[in-house]
Amino acid sequence: MDITDLRDRIINRDRRALARAITLIESSRPDHRAQAAELMEALKTTDRQAIRIGLSGTPGVGKSTFIESFGTMLTEQGLRVAVLAVDPSSARSGGSILGDKTRMENLSRNPNAFIRPSPSQTHLGGVARRTREAVALCEAAGFDVVLIETVGVGQSETVVAEMSDLFILLLAPAGGDELQGVKRGIMEMADIILVNKADGDLKAVATRTCSDYAGALRLLRKRPQDPEGFPKAMMVSALHEEGLRKAWEEMTTLISWRRETGHFDGRRAEQARYWFEQEVRQGLLARLETPEARLAMSDYATRVAEGTVTPTVAARAVLDAFGGN
Amino acid sequence: MDITDLRDRIINRDRRALARAITLIESSRPDHRAQAAELMEALKTTDRQAIRIGLSGTPGVGKSTFIESFGTMLTEQGLRVAVLAVDPSSARSGGSILGDKTRMENLSRNPNAFIRPSPSQTHLGGVARRTREAVALCEAAGFDVVLIETVGVGQSETVVAEMSDLFILLLAPAGGDELQGVKRGIMEMADIILVNKADGDLKAVATRTCSDYAGALRLLRKRPQDPEGFPKAMMVSALHEEGLRKAWEEMTTLISWRRETGHFDGRRAEQARYWFEQEVRQGLLARLETPEARLAMSDYATRVAEGTVTPTVAARAVLDAFGGN
Repeated sequence: MDITDLRDRIINRDRRALARAITLIESSRPDHRAQAAELMEALKTTDRQAIRIGLSGTPGVGKSTFIESFGTMLTEQGLRVAVLAVDPSSARSGGSILGDKTRMENLSRNPNAFIRPSPSQTHLGGVARRTREAVALCEAAGFDVVLIETVGVGQSETVVAEMSDLFILLLAPAGGDELQGVKRGIMEMADIILVNKADGDLKAVATRTCSDYAGALRLLRKRPQDPEGFPKAMMVSALHEEGLRKAWEEMTTLISWRRETGHFDGRRAEQARYWFEQEVRQGLLARLETPEARLAMSDYATRVAEGTVTPTVAARAVLDAFGGN
Repeated sequence: MDITDLRDRIINRDRRALARAITLIESSRPDHRAQAAELMEALKTTDRQAIRIGLSGTPGVGKSTFIESFGTMLTEQGLRVAVLAVDPSSARSGGSILGDKTRMENLSRNPNAFIRPSPSQTHLGGVARRTREAVALCEAAGFDVVLIETVGVGQSETVVAEMSDLFILLLAPAGGDELQGVKRGIMEMADIILVNKADGDLKAVATRTCSDYAGALRLLRKRPQDPEGFPKAMMVSALHEEGLRKAWEEMTTLISWRRETGHFDGRRAEQARYWFEQEVRQGLLARLETPEARLAMSDYATRVAEGTVTPTVAARAVLDAFGGN
C-alpha cells in the first residue's frame, strides 16, 4: 500500500481513502500495524482540528435518531460530520451498534457525513487505540465534527470521554418506578445532559427529568474547565428535531470558552498524557495475559476471595512467577 | 519480637499489643515486614468480624465531632470501637487528621475505644496495605466496629470504600452560593449520606440539603447490594447527639440485609480480589518508579502533550527501555 498516496487522498477529503485507512489501523497484522504507524506519523502535521463530541446513552434513549437528526442539522449548517463508535461488546453480540446504518438512513447517504461502526474487538484497550486513531484520521480528512458514540458497556464511557472535547449524556424521560437511573460514574463525566423525547405525551416527564438532573449536577463540585452554568441539562426531541440547534449552540459556547481559556488545548494535552500512560500500563500488565499467568491470577483470586491467603502474599507469589524481575 | 506472644495478647484484647502490632505493620524495615507477615498469617483464623465503616468528609463538616459522638454512643451500647484513618497527605502536612486526639477528648479516653492516626506515608498504595492490615488487627483484637475515616485527598475515598462494609459520606448543610459540591465520584460510593449540623440556625438548610442529595441518589442506577430505600440521605447533629442512633439503626439494617442476602460476604470477597489485583498491578508498575524510568515517563509525557510524538510511539519507547521484556 502506498502510504504517501493514501495520506494525500485523505487530506484531499477522499472518503474511500479514509475508510481504507481506518481498515488499515484496525488490522492487527504486524505489516499493517507498521503501515498504520507510518500513516499516523505522516498525518501528524495537518493541523486540522475537529470538535470531538463523545455521546453516551443506553439502548432505548433514541441515540440513533439523535445522531441522525443532530448530524443532519450540522451538515445543513455546512459542517462535515463523522460518526464513530466504541462498542467493545460488538464482537460478542455479533453486530456493532452502528452496524445497522438503516437507522441513520439520511445521514448515511449524506455526502458530508461519514459513518463507521466500532472495530470488532472485545479488548477495550485495542478498541480505544483504534478509535483514537480513527478520530485523528477523520480530523486529517477535514471533518468539522467527530461524534464518538458508546452504548455504555463497562468502561467504554471513560474511553470515549478521554478522547472527546465534549461529553454528552443522552437520557430518556423517566420518573418514579420507570427510573432506571444513570450508571454510576457517568453523570460526573457529562458536560451536557440531553433529555431526549421531550415531545408529545412525554414532554411533561421530560421537563421533570431535566430538572432533576439539573439539580443533581449542581451538587457536584465545580470543575475549572466549566464556565458558569455548566455542566447543564437540556431537553431535546430528536424525532421532532427540536432543541438540537440550541444544544449545538450550548456546545459551541462551551467549546469557545474552553478555547479562550486554554482548557480546550489543556484537555487535549491531558488526554494525550492519559493515553500514553495507559498504553505503558497496559504494556506492562500484558505480562499477566499469558495463559499461565491468567490461570495463576484466577487461582489466587479465588483463594484470596475465600480468605485462605492474604492479598499481599498472593500478589507476591504472582509477581515472583510472572513479574520478570 | 515474639510474634506468638503478640498474637495471643491481641486476641486477649490487649490494646497496647494492638498498638504495637500496628507499629510493626507500618514499618518498612524488611525484618519488620517479615514479622508482620508472620503475625497476619497467625491471626488469619480468628474468625472475628467487625463492621467496617468508611467515613469521608471534607474539613469543616464536623467529622471529628461526629466520630466523637457516634463512637461514644456505640460504646454506650456495649460495642468496642476502633478508629483508623487514611490520609496520604499527612506526611506532607506534618500532622495526620487524627493526630490531634484532643478533638476526640472523650472517645480517646474511653476504654472501649481505640484511636490510631494514619500511617505517615505519602504513597497511597502503602497506606492502603497498612490500613487494611490495621483493620484486620482491630478485628482480631475483638473490636465490633472499625471506623476508617478519610479527609478525601486524591483517591483516598476509593481506598477506604474498598476496605469498608459501609461507606458513609458526611456533608455540611449548604445551598446556593455556599454549595461546594461533592467531589466527583464520591456520591456514587456512598451507602448513606449524613448531613451533619442539622441543628439551630442550620436546621432548615440541612433539611433542604438532605432532600437535594436524596433526590440525586434516586437518579443513580440501583446496585444489587442495596435494598429498597438505599442508598439514603439523612440528617444528624453530632454536636447535639441527634439522629446518631437512627443513623446506626439504618447502618445495621443495611448490614443485616446484606448479610442475609450474601452481599456482605460477597463484597468482602470482591474487596480481597481487588486488593490482590491492585498489589499485582502496583508490583508490575513499580518498574516505572526508578529515577531513570520516571525521567523517561515525564519527558515523553511532555512531548506527547505537546503533540510531537503520538502516545502509542512514546509508550512503545518506554516499554522497550523499561518493560523488562
